[in-house]
Amino acid sequence: MSDKQTITITPVGVMRCAIKTPGQAPMNYSESQALGTIEVFAPYLEAMSGLEAGQTLVALCWLHEARRDLLKVYPRGDRSRGLRGVFTTRSPMRPNPIAVSEFTVTKVEGNRIEVTGVDVIDGTPVLDLKSAVCKSGAGSRDR
Amino acid sequence: MSDKQTITITPVGVMRCAIKTPGQAPMNYSESQALGTIEVFAPYLEAMSGLEAGQTLVALCWLHEARRDLLKVYPRGDRSRGLRGVFTTRSPMRPNPIAVSEFTVTKVEGNRIEVTGVDVIDGTPVLDLKSAVCKSGAGSRDR
Repeated sequence: MSDKQTITITPVGVMRCAIKTPGQAPMNYSESQALGTIEVFAPYLEAMSGLEAGQTLVALCWLHEARRDLLKVYPRGDRSRGLRGVFTTRSPMRPNPIAVSEFTVTKVEGNRIEVTGVDVIDGTPVLDLKSAVCKSGAGSRDR
Repeated sequence: MSDKQTITITPVGVMRCAIKTPGQAPMNYSESQALGTIEVFAPYLEAMSGLEAGQTLVALCWLHEARRDLLKVYPRGDRSRGLRGVFTTRSPMRPNPIAVSEFTVTKVEGNRIEVTGVDVIDGTPVLDLKSAVCKSGAGSRDR
């Protein structure tokens, strides 16, 4: 495989929420109580089958406003800590800015999934949704 | 945002391991002791700065052999459990087959990251690497 290979992805949905700029976004889903609604696009509605309030949903989002040209950052913007390679951080700035967040589902209605724990901005493309891995026992979550 | 928008991604690396077919792959990283080596492509070497043995690395991999046209699956192939929407499972089959795995780093040398917990096949493109979220306290892991 060459490093020139490219992959084309079409988002399966979009996040709608009150967070309008990256500066307003919580640093991480584990520090967020923000509400949002994932609107799933029509071709993918069937993939929501079985989704219910109370579930933890892993969301992969494309951080469309993030810089992709930075390979080192100051973690959490703290210059006293020195530059670190982005692969050792959760910085939104990275060559392929795909965020991995865990949201809690509060309501499912039609193509809309209401969630809490939002750490991305309004209009962020959603690339994938999946169930969380349960570490306490194989089989309680599903491949 | 329209559902016709597409995003172009260039992999940052590739997985090298002894798992040669999807059928040989463990169901999930949490059930895997398999070894592998992530080869990071030259343009992204600087992003590895600070990466060390013992760290947990979240890897986003593009499951290049997965079917993208299935929206419902039998979880873990068990037909007795009924079909479920892929967004409520960890099935590799989904519209955008991006796997989220947590690997343990055992060695870092040049552009090579040796890891355990591999659940993807040899040749799988790696889209992103990031640190794990520590749930026990903000700040111990970094945005």
